[in-house]
Amino acid sequence: MNSGLEGVVAAETRLSMVDGERGELVIGGFRVEELASWHFEDVVQLLWGEDVGRASARLVGLKPDLRLPMDALRAGVAQLEGDDARAILWTCPAIVAAHWRARRGLEPVAPREDLGFAANYLWMLNGVEPHAEVVRGLETYLNTVVDHGLNASTFTARVIASTGSDLVSAVTGAIGALKGPLHGGAPGPALDTVFEIGDAARAEEVLRRKIESGERLMGFGHRVYKVRDPRADVLAAAAERMFTRAGDMHLYELARAVERTALRLLEEYKPGRRLQTNVEFYTALLLHGIGLDTDLFTPTFAISRVAGWIAHCLEQRQVGRLIRPQSVYVGPRPA
Amino acid sequence: MNSGLEGVVAAETRLSMVDGERGELVIGGFRVEELASWHFEDVVQLLWGEDVGRASARLVGLKPDLRLPMDALRAGVAQLEGDDARAILWTCPAIVAAHWRARRGLEPVAPREDLGFAANYLWMLNGVEPHAEVVRGLETYLNTVVDHGLNASTFTARVIASTGSDLVSAVTGAIGALKGPLHGGAPGPALDTVFEIGDAARAEEVLRRKIESGERLMGFGHRVYKVRDPRADVLAAAAERMFTRAGDMHLYELARAVERTALRLLEEYKPGRRLQTNVEFYTALLLHGIGLDTDLFTPTFAISRVAGWIAHCLEQRQVGRLIRPQSVYVGPRPA
Repeated sequence: MNSGLEGVVAAETRLSMVDGERGELVIGGFRVEELASWHFEDVVQLLWGEDVGRASARLVGLKPDLRLPMDALRAGVAQLEGDDARAILWTCPAIVAAHWRARRGLEPVAPREDLGFAANYLWMLNGVEPHAEVVRGLETYLNTVVDHGLNASTFTARVIASTGSDLVSAVTGAIGALKGPLHGGAPGPALDTVFEIGDAARAEEVLRRKIESGERLMGFGHRVYKVRDPRADVLAAAAERMFTRAGDMHLYELARAVERTALRLLEEYKPGRRLQTNVEFYTALLLHGIGLDTDLFTPTFAISRVAGWIAHCLEQRQVGRLIRPQSVYVGPRPA
Repeated sequence: MNSGLEGVVAAETRLSMVDGERGELVIGGFRVEELASWHFEDVVQLLWGEDVGRASARLVGLKPDLRLPMDALRAGVAQLEGDDARAILWTCPAIVAAHWRARRGLEPVAPREDLGFAANYLWMLNGVEPHAEVVRGLETYLNTVVDHGLNASTFTARVIASTGSDLVSAVTGAIGALKGPLHGGAPGPALDTVFEIGDAARAEEVLRRKIESGERLMGFGHRVYKVRDPRADVLAAAAERMFTRAGDMHLYELARAVERTALRLLEEYKPGRRLQTNVEFYTALLLHGIGLDTDLFTPTFAISRVAGWIAHCLEQRQVGRLIRPQSVYVGPRPA
């Protein structure tokens, strides 16, 4: 019995390859470093093999009484019907943005046909046309997380697709899996320590106290990649570019100062562990720089990963075979 | 690579055991034959280890523009939040009934605290208090399909639950998987041939024509069970009891006459194949006798199976381990 299906190969894919030993992430035949500067629409087209069209969000009835953005996204997508990949892709950011605004008593902002995917998301969130460098930063983020092998949400989408069910059902299920705290991949509050420190002069004192009290420093270390996560450098460079051209340099310099101190102290307290800044740290830095609240991080991850889920569903359909492992009964036997 | 995960054991379960060789279905330690006469609430309590409470459907915003009842069920459940198993269980029949009525221009009927689960479903569908024998027939059906090993929808629920996500997300995903035509288990239009024949005197002529033209006769044969599906006898007996006490005996006698003729002709044309009436045939007979339209069959299956999905999620949480198989990259390599 292999309750986690670890090491079991459940799919062949042409979509992405995660090589944790070599620190390599390949998406649709391209290294993530290369894809980083593309338009998100072009990355999706690479995965789908078809054009993603322009802004065409479906109007869905929102449930602003749902507290969590991911619940709202699940409920919103679940209201669509059928197999329209473009409609699902474009509707997701509209749901997240409209729910975020509704929770703050704000009216929804309609998407604009003259803006691309990333710019439309920020436009629908804020009702303000975003700076080109901010859009560029967001696109880089979206590109780096669009697909990442057979994680639990992608596997969920493929299992549902394997029954012959529709894309709406598969994506809805995947959103529900991504919500889970054990899923991994979705960015978390990795800058909370930075915000807590607030002033670079306090970094060493606060970090020493945390390390000595056994607290795990968020933002350092990663499970899959034994070497550096290839997305880390991409996102670090994107953050630097965005902050220097359109951002809050105070936050950026503070974060990098905290990072330098943390790495120095980790080497001092845990020599040889080679703990490095992980992708979470740069992701949080970039997304905060873009102006997103922490509670928008996972939904923002989702609006990109939706494209990967859909690509996996289309690929799974080519297999044409139900994914159906077995269970072993360990309960009582009838008399 | 095992693209269907066939033969891979992904879970230990105390919930149900399907033994296709011996024609045995055990649910929570009891043979399905024994459980058939229970109240559905007691079967669910057996699986959950806790009381299911009384009618307490949450009001959800319906989308009557969704055409398919399963889409409406997915959208309705997706609007709930959190981990309230009872709320999910009781809300499902309310969604199906309200959507079915809304599609016909009828107002929803509120559930009644003095009616049980099965009776409430029929009450909310029709606004008429159902005959006790009809309720008994429906409960027998619900009991027989509440759980059936690790089928694709149950596996979907367990994968989502394995991420630590909530019950609403897991059930929503499972509904999406159950929708798929390859899923199996959900009852189909197995009586269409009976309706087409209409008069027992025409049975032999129509059936001979179908068999000779290579048409597969719906209602005969099954994939998993090499011997007779243990649910078939249970449902056949339930149908006979219900029809003789509260039903349309014309339909019943016609169906049984068609069945006798079909079995005789199948033995004549395909000797030794031992094709038997399958569970689909008796299910359709029973559900039509209860007064359900064919397009309510899968949702009716779902409102029972939801209880099994939830039980599997609770069980999966005890494992506490992410279900995450691997993929093999077969796409192009970067230059």
